[in-house]
Amino acid sequence: MTTSASSEPYAPGPLLQGIDSPADVRKLADEALEPLASEIRNTLITSLSRTGGHLGPNLGVVELSIALHRVFHTPEDKIVFDVAHQGYVHKMLTGRAKQIDTIRTYKGLNGFLLRTESEHDAYGAGHAGTALSAALGMAAARDLAGHDNHVIAVAGDAAFTCGPTLEALNNIAETTRRFIVVLNDNEWSIDKNVGAIARYFNDLQTHHTFSAVRAKAAEFVEKVAGKAARTLAHKVEEGAKNLLFPNVLFEKFGLRYFGPIDGHDLPLLVRTFEHLKTLHEPVVLHIITEKGRGYQPAIDNPGKFHGLGTYQINDGSTGSSPTPTCSEIFGRTVTDLAKDDPKVVAITAAMPGGTKLDIFKNELPDRYFDVGIAEEHAALFACGLATEGFRPFLAIYSTFMQRAYDMIIHDIALQNLPVRLCMDRGGLSGDDGPTHHGLFDIGYLRHIPGLIHMQPKDEDEFVDMIHTMAAYDDGPTAIRYPRGAIRGTKIKDKPVLLEIGKAEVVSEGNDVALFGLGTMFEMAEETKALLEAKGFSVSLINPRFIKPMDTAVIEEHARKCRVVCTFEDHVLMHGFGAAVIEHLHDAGIHTPVERIGWPDEFIEHGKPEILRDLHGLTAEAAMVKILHHLG
Amino acid sequence: MTTSASSEPYAPGPLLQGIDSPADVRKLADEALEPLASEIRNTLITSLSRTGGHLGPNLGVVELSIALHRVFHTPEDKIVFDVAHQGYVHKMLTGRAKQIDTIRTYKGLNGFLLRTESEHDAYGAGHAGTALSAALGMAAARDLAGHDNHVIAVAGDAAFTCGPTLEALNNIAETTRRFIVVLNDNEWSIDKNVGAIARYFNDLQTHHTFSAVRAKAAEFVEKVAGKAARTLAHKVEEGAKNLLFPNVLFEKFGLRYFGPIDGHDLPLLVRTFEHLKTLHEPVVLHIITEKGRGYQPAIDNPGKFHGLGTYQINDGSTGSSPTPTCSEIFGRTVTDLAKDDPKVVAITAAMPGGTKLDIFKNELPDRYFDVGIAEEHAALFACGLATEGFRPFLAIYSTFMQRAYDMIIHDIALQNLPVRLCMDRGGLSGDDGPTHHGLFDIGYLRHIPGLIHMQPKDEDEFVDMIHTMAAYDDGPTAIRYPRGAIRGTKIKDKPVLLEIGKAEVVSEGNDVALFGLGTMFEMAEETKALLEAKGFSVSLINPRFIKPMDTAVIEEHARKCRVVCTFEDHVLMHGFGAAVIEHLHDAGIHTPVERIGWPDEFIEHGKPEILRDLHGLTAEAAMVKILHHLG
Repeated sequence: MTTSASSEPYAPGPLLQGIDSPADVRKLADEALEPLASEIRNTLITSLSRTGGHLGPNLGVVELSIALHRVFHTPEDKIVFDVAHQGYVHKMLTGRAKQIDTIRTYKGLNGFLLRTESEHDAYGAGHAGTALSAALGMAAARDLAGHDNHVIAVAGDAAFTCGPTLEALNNIAETTRRFIVVLNDNEWSIDKNVGAIARYFNDLQTHHTFSAVRAKAAEFVEKVAGKAARTLAHKVEEGAKNLLFPNVLFEKFGLRYFGPIDGHDLPLLVRTFEHLKTLHEPVVLHIITEKGRGYQPAIDNPGKFHGLGTYQINDGSTGSSPTPTCSEIFGRTVTDLAKDDPKVVAITAAMPGGTKLDIFKNELPDRYFDVGIAEEHAALFACGLATEGFRPFLAIYSTFMQRAYDMIIHDIALQNLPVRLCMDRGGLSGDDGPTHHGLFDIGYLRHIPGLIHMQPKDEDEFVDMIHTMAAYDDGPTAIRYPRGAIRGTKIKDKPVLLEIGKAEVVSEGNDVALFGLGTMFEMAEETKALLEAKGFSVSLINPRFIKPMDTAVIEEHARKCRVVCTFEDHVLMHGFGAAVIEHLHDAGIHTPVERIGWPDEFIEHGKPEILRDLHGLTAEAAMVKILHHLG
Repeated sequence: MTTSASSEPYAPGPLLQGIDSPADVRKLADEALEPLASEIRNTLITSLSRTGGHLGPNLGVVELSIALHRVFHTPEDKIVFDVAHQGYVHKMLTGRAKQIDTIRTYKGLNGFLLRTESEHDAYGAGHAGTALSAALGMAAARDLAGHDNHVIAVAGDAAFTCGPTLEALNNIAETTRRFIVVLNDNEWSIDKNVGAIARYFNDLQTHHTFSAVRAKAAEFVEKVAGKAARTLAHKVEEGAKNLLFPNVLFEKFGLRYFGPIDGHDLPLLVRTFEHLKTLHEPVVLHIITEKGRGYQPAIDNPGKFHGLGTYQINDGSTGSSPTPTCSEIFGRTVTDLAKDDPKVVAITAAMPGGTKLDIFKNELPDRYFDVGIAEEHAALFACGLATEGFRPFLAIYSTFMQRAYDMIIHDIALQNLPVRLCMDRGGLSGDDGPTHHGLFDIGYLRHIPGLIHMQPKDEDEFVDMIHTMAAYDDGPTAIRYPRGAIRGTKIKDKPVLLEIGKAEVVSEGNDVALFGLGTMFEMAEETKALLEAKGFSVSLINPRFIKPMDTAVIEEHARKCRVVCTFEDHVLMHGFGAAVIEHLHDAGIHTPVERIGWPDEFIEHGKPEILRDLHGLTAEAAMVKILHHLG
């Protein structure tokens, strides 16, 4: 995160200022559309330089979003954006242009779509691959109700590596006759070959005479695009690896295929959608767009500009933090481990950058596997490797690990396979909001038999834990670690292996026992200082292991202290503190346990400091609760 | 479940008796293979008539299993069976023929494959769609280790409606050059057209000259099989709906396609596998098999004989229970509801028979959706319908609902959509074992904000709860109900709506408060009787709601009684009793809470009575624990 250079107050341009709803988009003269697109791009580039956000994807869908709102009438027509990080332009066209500078800030616009934010947001998302299925449900509802509205699912090419999208594809043709899928193909850079085909197909598709020449055209595209795609596949950083010959593929699933067309040609997009809305068969429109379109730094570095913090408008530069993130430490540590141990392999589900397994990829490409947005496959693939004696590290964000939940139970734990679940973004994710917070993983993992689960209090211990996981072959292990840094601790030269299930007693006291899990250890330390300033004697414990829990340490300190307080970056329900209460109860120890953690509700987006204050996750709040018991 | 007619003791036939390992299969003369197949079929038909099991699928793979073990060398070569309910023949060929009569019984053979049961079971399963991914992990391991073994994934056609299988397909070609997928196509009955093509292809494929004529052949198959498949699709009961033109589809994913061939032609299978093992490219072999092959009752009624209890060998008849199952009550009730309410829709993931939504399908086909083995899509599709004001009932077994876990959090609960999660087989599943027990759903659901979760104590209340869910449009609801019947209660004529979050106090007492959740209410009643016989005064409560929990009733009875005991058909960790402990602790009530439920381990297969006794889920065990506190 860096600070922004620009400081002029934000104001939408003259065309955007006149757009209070999509009806205003439809009222514009044709000639005003390109200027509107420019204005939107300028707004995005300027505004996001101050707030951060998904700049690249949104710059890529400016024309698409305008064309959709020009042709279709939301909220009656339903536009479902997959992942929905590309929804900023849609927000600007549906009455939210004036708030775009609040995006991803507390009480401001959410960085994804939310049904509660606008009636034009037909469906909320944040995880990939849900759009086709949800939209198909809307189409089925439309058909059952005898309505006439259109349903359009907009999904990136990476979504087509994803199980739910493929399951949906298998169901579309027999569910409805009116359904539009827009395949927004922005992973592959626009190539002259592809561009030529786009033009060729455009001419074919937008005339109503194309059906006769269709077979010939398909052959041609397959021949040329197939070859091109094979070449291009080597350039693909993430996802969409084997999506060759999409026309044949889609038609096998019963969707009529149109494209590829240039997704930045606004008149063509409008004309194409006008045609597609007249059809009574499910269709897929394949458009080629450029991530970062109109902003050279984002074109040059699509990975960085997919989603980022603030940046300098002139050159796209971002300040670099001197503190390494947990992801960076993870990527570095697993790579180093693998250099010493040929059995270590790394698996990511389309997140080499986010998980920093790109370090592993660069240094040990043979043992690196990016399977696309395919968490279920990733977990099963890890199982297969584990059965043959390999040591798979499966790096998936806590919130996305939910996708592999059945595999964690049915395949990993039930077979006791030593798969290492590495859950980045464990805990509050902040600006991204509820679709990305990792606040449930203790809840969904702790009751799984035999699964070891841990969380480090600082960077140094994080490295020790990764080594401990590598060394543990007797069953599955999981680790949760936060977005960004923990506290910037220096990492010792030689890691040590931790004893499984053993907590670290940092200080001994007789009045209060504080258990600060992982990231929250720092808050427990602060609470200790506050209590000691009031003259109380405090035990401070770093639990390290959520499961198996160090019941001996918990019992000992609960017995000798008058009150226990647990701290966790997780919901309280089914959390670490609940486990402590459960154990103490069964042990017949009645010491009161106060718990600091998130309430039983979905937590909004915003800076972690704001949200922690708001929900009582502070040392001061802990102290108040604790003092209540000390009389 | 019925009793068996046959009573002769079980003994394998003369050929099977000589087979202690797959090496013995390879030693047999070619002429002995067909007799071996017959012997296996007889054994299956006879033995399963006494134990129950997956008869139809296993009769379909007799030749396939023999051919695999004739050509490949397990355990070095890895055969991964998808779902693995078709693994009985494999078990008989890998040293377990003599135990086949113990299948699905306590301490006997498991009904699926288990890595702990045999070194020849490369991978365990019970849920569909995992084989390709896991096998691909094994192939990647083989390549990395520089080994030479073969990896074969055997999957039914229905598995190809399933997200993980499709995700795996997308990854095979770029992961390995040596990989064999056997597509065991047994849903579609063998048609003369298909048989003719099988022969045609066989001649082509088993000669090494086929490549030249391949293109022509593919065209022909596409033309004929495509048409045939479209016609046949209407016959499909479950799954595999749009799997047309598999050859083109697979080749788009980079797998060389062979087939379809007759999966009961043993010499052909052997010859084909001998050829496939020489290839250095990923291949799919499409075989056509007949479910129930060799046993007319199973051929005539493939749905019934997919998996069943005991039956009469002579005609395949099974006794019918006079007590309706929960599934039957569910199917009937939702269908009746839907007749009165045009907004009610029903969704199943390839389980119309298991969930009894086939009742709904027959009476209201327009509002019935079977999406294939695609739980993720099913949940998202339900979301789409819910956004448009429909009332979706999503019927998925508790253990399979794990597949839709991310959608339950990210799509259903976060958007507060009134999707009704109907979790059949909630609780112990008995004979099927750990892959099928539904013992985790309180654990994985309770911490999800805003999700209502309930469980009925008897059939009459079950109907009330289904009506209550239908009437509740303010957010998501979930219900867990057991396999089979609860206690056979008569259902009143007119259902009543239950108050959300309100428990039912059945009797008031002052010594002990018993909370019997759902199916376990009966055990709580028994415990009450035992305690009353000893002179204690007992409160008996039917909690009804897991969330929101009736905290007022819990507090009241915990305050006035000396001990609380909870009963649940769920693991104790993150269970209902744990929630009671957590609440009482926070309320400052120190009454001891004893909990009856399953321990923190995977529970084996066997009759529920045996397993309950073994793990202390009995009224007697409860009484002992309770008396401990009463002094």
